[in-house]
Amino acid sequence: MLPIRSISIIGTGNAAFQIGRNLNRSGLLIAEVWGRDHQVALLLADELQAKVTNPEDFTGDLIFLCVSDDAIETSSSMLASKIPVIHCSGSKPLSALNNSGTKGVFYPLQTMSKTREIDFAEVPILVEADSKELLESLKCLGTMISNKVFEVNSENRSHYHVSAVMVNNFINHLIYLSQEELRKNKLDLSLLKPLILETIEKAFDLDPYQAQTGPARRGDQKVIEEHSTKLSGHTKEIYDAFSRSILSTYHDQL
Amino acid sequence: MLPIRSISIIGTGNAAFQIGRNLNRSGLLIAEVWGRDHQVALLLADELQAKVTNPEDFTGDLIFLCVSDDAIETSSSMLASKIPVIHCSGSKPLSALNNSGTKGVFYPLQTMSKTREIDFAEVPILVEADSKELLESLKCLGTMISNKVFEVNSENRSHYHVSAVMVNNFINHLIYLSQEELRKNKLDLSLLKPLILETIEKAFDLDPYQAQTGPARRGDQKVIEEHSTKLSGHTKEIYDAFSRSILSTYHDQL
Repeated sequence: MLPIRSISIIGTGNAAFQIGRNLNRSGLLIAEVWGRDHQVALLLADELQAKVTNPEDFTGDLIFLCVSDDAIETSSSMLASKIPVIHCSGSKPLSALNNSGTKGVFYPLQTMSKTREIDFAEVPILVEADSKELLESLKCLGTMISNKVFEVNSENRSHYHVSAVMVNNFINHLIYLSQEELRKNKLDLSLLKPLILETIEKAFDLDPYQAQTGPARRGDQKVIEEHSTKLSGHTKEIYDAFSRSILSTYHDQL
Repeated sequence: MLPIRSISIIGTGNAAFQIGRNLNRSGLLIAEVWGRDHQVALLLADELQAKVTNPEDFTGDLIFLCVSDDAIETSSSMLASKIPVIHCSGSKPLSALNNSGTKGVFYPLQTMSKTREIDFAEVPILVEADSKELLESLKCLGTMISNKVFEVNSENRSHYHVSAVMVNNFINHLIYLSQEELRKNKLDLSLLKPLILETIEKAFDLDPYQAQTGPARRGDQKVIEEHSTKLSGHTKEIYDAFSRSILSTYHDQL
């Protein structure tokens, strides 16, 4: 196992802040940070008690490349040092890294924003590396901040990533569409929150196939049509697509 | 305000069990229960320390009609006594009740199953009545089990109900579709749970319009097409419908 006594971070986005913060709180030394936006890099460095340093002068045992997916290939090819480099992307393969030294991936399966604090304890961390030594080190780093560290290869990580994007993006948009429907009648979205949380708990407790309820689950075409005619535009299109999908899952129709 | 010292329950479904249990635990006396399935009625009565009694012999101050939506009109028309009757449905109006005495509605905005215990403390209870006295009593009953009791008329309650059905049914089905995609590669749905819970918290914390992320939010047609071509059948149809809807919400496209 490669000893990781300190790390260096490239990038100043949400992932850099959240991962840096969590590792730092667990006692890991953040030696340096660097980012295109010098002012934000100073903020990040200040929070992590680190210095802002050019990557060629990095001294950490590991470089966290927390840049956007499209920048991983170019940024990594500019890193001349032999320090191992890891990226934090769900969709990009390990092979996207072009540095000359060892390579790895450290992907927290979570949505991250600068403003919302994330407790990483229950967040799955998916790790991968091109050497057994680095892999063991990444597992060890992962367990410093999370109880759920998994070795997952690039292909499987991309499957998790697509599913994650779908549930995250589409659940959020469903909540938005509900809010719009309720707003038309000056009603309050927040009343739906306990129901939505129980929906999630029930789906994971019983299994989502068993937990399904509603008109399409019952095959109740009359209620489906009643609801559908009340809706319009994209909301109607989404209502109809879900109804067809649920009907075909449980009633072998369409 | 009508004094409610004890209640009677008609019906032995999930709502009867969950509402009965929660009111009973809060110290309310459940005098009698009745249901078509005598064996289940005995189980419910046993749990609530009540008797199984024919409705014509009910002695409670209020009758909870916990039957299916379609049975509310017929069941209530058969109740000859002057005891006030309330139903617990989200979609049926107050006027669905055909009893000769006062009428009301007591609708917990939550998904209920016999097996999963619900803590009603945060569950919104929507109440309505055709007399001010009964309305005050229902508010009082509501606050015995929940911190969130609201007076909501039949029309607005039906709007809440449609939104509730949509978020509940469709979020559950999205989780099911993710599970199916992950299963094809022998991957584990449970890794997505912390992400889904954070998605909900973030949507309610920031507002779902602000919380939206992903390729459609960015207007990234290339990634949308890449994802879409990987999917098939109903999952692809739902992916495309959401992408169109999110694009039109943020980019004025169709």
